[in-house]
Amino acid sequence: MPIYTAPTRDTRFVVNELLELGSYGNLPGFEMVSEDVTEAVINEGGKFCAEVLAPLNRIGDEHGCVRNEDGSVTTPPGFKEAFDQFREAGWGTIAAPEEFGGQGMPHVLGFVMEEYIASANQAFGMYPGLTNGAISALIAKGSQEQKEKYLPKMISNEWTGTMNLTEPHCGTDLGMIRTKAVPNGDGSYALTGTKIFISAGEHDMADNIIHLVLAKTPGAPDSTKGISLFVVPKFIVNDDGTPGERNGVSCGSIEEKMGIHGNSTCVLNYDGATGWMVGEENKGLAAMFIMMNAARLGVGIQGLSQAEAAYQNAVAYALDRRQGRALSGPAEPEAQADPIFVHPDVRRMLMDAKAFTEGMRALCLWGALLVDLTHKAQTEEEREQADLLIGLMTPVIKGYGTDKGYEVATNMQQVFGGHGYIEEWGMSQFVRDARIAQIYEGTNGVQAMDLCGRKLAQKGGAAVQAFFKVVGEEIAAAKKVEATKDMAEQLEKALGQQQAATMWFMNNAMQNPNHLGAGAHHYMHIMGIVTLGLMWLKMAKIAAAKVDGAGDDKAFYEQKLATARYYMDRYLPDAGALRRKLEAGADSMMALGEEAFQTAA
Amino acid sequence: MPIYTAPTRDTRFVVNELLELGSYGNLPGFEMVSEDVTEAVINEGGKFCAEVLAPLNRIGDEHGCVRNEDGSVTTPPGFKEAFDQFREAGWGTIAAPEEFGGQGMPHVLGFVMEEYIASANQAFGMYPGLTNGAISALIAKGSQEQKEKYLPKMISNEWTGTMNLTEPHCGTDLGMIRTKAVPNGDGSYALTGTKIFISAGEHDMADNIIHLVLAKTPGAPDSTKGISLFVVPKFIVNDDGTPGERNGVSCGSIEEKMGIHGNSTCVLNYDGATGWMVGEENKGLAAMFIMMNAARLGVGIQGLSQAEAAYQNAVAYALDRRQGRALSGPAEPEAQADPIFVHPDVRRMLMDAKAFTEGMRALCLWGALLVDLTHKAQTEEEREQADLLIGLMTPVIKGYGTDKGYEVATNMQQVFGGHGYIEEWGMSQFVRDARIAQIYEGTNGVQAMDLCGRKLAQKGGAAVQAFFKVVGEEIAAAKKVEATKDMAEQLEKALGQQQAATMWFMNNAMQNPNHLGAGAHHYMHIMGIVTLGLMWLKMAKIAAAKVDGAGDDKAFYEQKLATARYYMDRYLPDAGALRRKLEAGADSMMALGEEAFQTAA
Repeated sequence: MPIYTAPTRDTRFVVNELLELGSYGNLPGFEMVSEDVTEAVINEGGKFCAEVLAPLNRIGDEHGCVRNEDGSVTTPPGFKEAFDQFREAGWGTIAAPEEFGGQGMPHVLGFVMEEYIASANQAFGMYPGLTNGAISALIAKGSQEQKEKYLPKMISNEWTGTMNLTEPHCGTDLGMIRTKAVPNGDGSYALTGTKIFISAGEHDMADNIIHLVLAKTPGAPDSTKGISLFVVPKFIVNDDGTPGERNGVSCGSIEEKMGIHGNSTCVLNYDGATGWMVGEENKGLAAMFIMMNAARLGVGIQGLSQAEAAYQNAVAYALDRRQGRALSGPAEPEAQADPIFVHPDVRRMLMDAKAFTEGMRALCLWGALLVDLTHKAQTEEEREQADLLIGLMTPVIKGYGTDKGYEVATNMQQVFGGHGYIEEWGMSQFVRDARIAQIYEGTNGVQAMDLCGRKLAQKGGAAVQAFFKVVGEEIAAAKKVEATKDMAEQLEKALGQQQAATMWFMNNAMQNPNHLGAGAHHYMHIMGIVTLGLMWLKMAKIAAAKVDGAGDDKAFYEQKLATARYYMDRYLPDAGALRRKLEAGADSMMALGEEAFQTAA
Repeated sequence: MPIYTAPTRDTRFVVNELLELGSYGNLPGFEMVSEDVTEAVINEGGKFCAEVLAPLNRIGDEHGCVRNEDGSVTTPPGFKEAFDQFREAGWGTIAAPEEFGGQGMPHVLGFVMEEYIASANQAFGMYPGLTNGAISALIAKGSQEQKEKYLPKMISNEWTGTMNLTEPHCGTDLGMIRTKAVPNGDGSYALTGTKIFISAGEHDMADNIIHLVLAKTPGAPDSTKGISLFVVPKFIVNDDGTPGERNGVSCGSIEEKMGIHGNSTCVLNYDGATGWMVGEENKGLAAMFIMMNAARLGVGIQGLSQAEAAYQNAVAYALDRRQGRALSGPAEPEAQADPIFVHPDVRRMLMDAKAFTEGMRALCLWGALLVDLTHKAQTEEEREQADLLIGLMTPVIKGYGTDKGYEVATNMQQVFGGHGYIEEWGMSQFVRDARIAQIYEGTNGVQAMDLCGRKLAQKGGAAVQAFFKVVGEEIAAAKKVEATKDMAEQLEKALGQQQAATMWFMNNAMQNPNHLGAGAHHYMHIMGIVTLGLMWLKMAKIAAAKVDGAGDDKAFYEQKLATARYYMDRYLPDAGALRRKLEAGADSMMALGEEAFQTAA
């Protein structure tokens, strides 16, 4: 069975040494986070995920979710019991507001836990994960009455939540949705329509499920400007807060998917279901984006999580499996063969994975800190700065992070050779589960367009300029230190590629917007490479400063420095190639009409 | 259900215009290949695969193979009947020698058919595919008696064949195998041991299965120098050629795999099974490599095949599915949304796929021609030249071809958005099936080492020098033509990257062989990129010469030119980045010991 250990040592490094969480004690919610509390979340959270959730991961994959004849859904064996434990331990409440029963801690710690959960069992993690998305929307847009009715039970995970956007004929283009919401005359609406791909849409793990549903009111504009958001509980909530009458929403079927079998991905049929509008009429898209942005960061973490889980197993296999001899001569002459760990090509894949997971962990947790600062920083300027940066980073974390997460998971499967292809070893599941993260909550193509078509241009390019400033300052500082000088220069070149690509967009995309579309995916990857480079340079700087006096931790800082060097050597060169592709523009990409793509006999 | 049409127009272009198969009429086997015969194979073969095999592809995935209580294996519904049709039509015999009942046609046409078969149904294609590998070994190393006994029935596909190499503890490092072959005293041997991952190892589609098995005779050296090859029929063949007594080999179980469910991947238990040695004692590895080289080219074709099948479906979906509007303004204002085909990022993925599949088809069929010339060219020099080139190309076709095939299949799944993740659409299967090709018949890491550790150095670098000459001449010629001048210059730069990388290996790998291992995978990809670039330059040159007078075919040549341009713009830049990674060497890759990879709590 696959193994999993929460990488708590590395988490502590990022939280305490890189982000210096303790230094934000003056901000609300941060004051309660003593080093002891941080330690407790990291250690106990990690333990829970490794001991309770990870052992259910293969079981979830094998059993999947079953829709019963009465339309109820049975989750895989053990999921319900594990969710009970999860709920009792309060693992879902870390970063939720205290006002509604949450622990009000920084998102940084919430994200730590999200990584561990998703590494241990991505399909399981989606039940509380989607709930968090729904919670965000209700916090931002719900009425006080709605908040009081739903949030405490959702935050406590007594109830779970869902996001209902997609319909059979539309996903990305939500202006086309057909689900109707007709006023009942009593303030409620009757919702009718079909939603698909609804994760955690129906299950047996909670007493109620709170669906947040996009629908159109009668006469609403036939575009994204005509979408409203509704809350539709599976059981209509009684005045005393208990679940009452069964609402007119039901699971029509469960999708057979490539992976995340442990999550019930439902077709949900709304048949005059009673719902209540959340926020203003026809302003549902904005509310949806609140759920979506939270969800996108969570999906980015999934990219990290599957890479991490797959990596740990590949390391164990590479150290155990013996085939052939080291190129430089037998490493263990007394054995019949050396562990495959000695082979450079195996090491290449492991180092690629290590450089990605540790860099991505730093990026995700930095992203979490930005989310916190967006709400909690002391000055308006700091809050705005954080908001700009996290807005820019969200598509990079989601898009680049999941593309690389899938690639790394695939490479870790490759380390296993033929055994990687056999389900029993669990490596196939990591790849299959990782695959969805490139697709849902906006495909990575949509992320690239969000980055290039929206975020780059926002406020006259203020966000990307702020980013360049952060990277530039880090480079300047690292250049002054002997141990990081070379690395800083390498990153400077890659940053130059991003700046040139940005300039190319500025000079060319106005005259032909297809140039932007043609280069968006390349740009997102350039930016991902530069951003992880920033993380590695920061980490290298810390490691360089600490390594000599580190005592028992010396090896830890040495490996940070070596991995940083590997990152600069092996990841950064792609930035130049991507820039060249981007600068090739849209012409050869868009030259051919549809007949040229059709297979000719 | 997924669609498939054999891309016969493009095949004809490669066979007739690029390779000019008709010009080899003076060579044995080629003389019978009139344009009519070529047409018949392409058209009828394509039709058979599209109409008979493709509809069984999803069925094979869903049903898989079942091991029954008596150890027999039932293949998916329809497979047996389809194999009967396949056998009756003689589709397995195209390139097999006439002496044993084959049609003796060039491998070029055999490879055409292999692509169509694998695109339509990769799991099905492995039954005759493995048979071909076993046939190759018997032709090269079998005694006349063995050839007469087994080959006619195998070539006719009345019987199928297998390759038995891997054991639970060893795959790549075959020196470690434990299967024993003890002489029975009558010229036969008793084989005892366990083989795993045996494709087509047991099934219900043929009257007999001829296993080719690596095993060790008593006292044989405990290394690859102690391996012998044996033929072990499932039913011992009677003197009259009919299958007789059941032999002591049985299917212990069927592996649960990520994909290719329609093929029965067996654990085979040999329990004193009777076998006969093929070729010389302790020379089994050489015989195995004959099977292996044939198989590796076949696996490269699988990379093409899954990319092609996935591409056709993605094109159809992109033209049908409507979401959003073209960046340059609505393409179909009267409709509620434009087809996603208008979006540059979708087009990027489709063009990437088109550039790969058409380039890879040209490469595979050129490879097939080289295989033919190895045996059949008129002069010893030409035969040697072909042998050098195909030896060099084999790991590139297998390694680069399957890495890209998987990437393209994944991107084609991405075109479908969420629907791509649902099994019903079939895109998941293309990805899952494509995945195995990077692993079996030597992982792509093994391919990279075969290329860099063996083929580059062979005969003082004669093979790679011959390759550089071929590419250089093509570039020089294309530079003289206005329509291809720019492209030739782009390719020249990429070739320069490969030459520099080669030089770097020469200057550094002797002092530290890990430098070679650390760069091998990068080198294989650089060479893949340059090789497909060579194919595209050749194709562009032909298209440029013909486009003006082409009449109805004008659009065909125009799209060849546009796709060539896209290839040069979007594929070649990676060669430079890969060279930089390669030149970073082994130091940062091998810096860390095993403790640095273990997850620290």
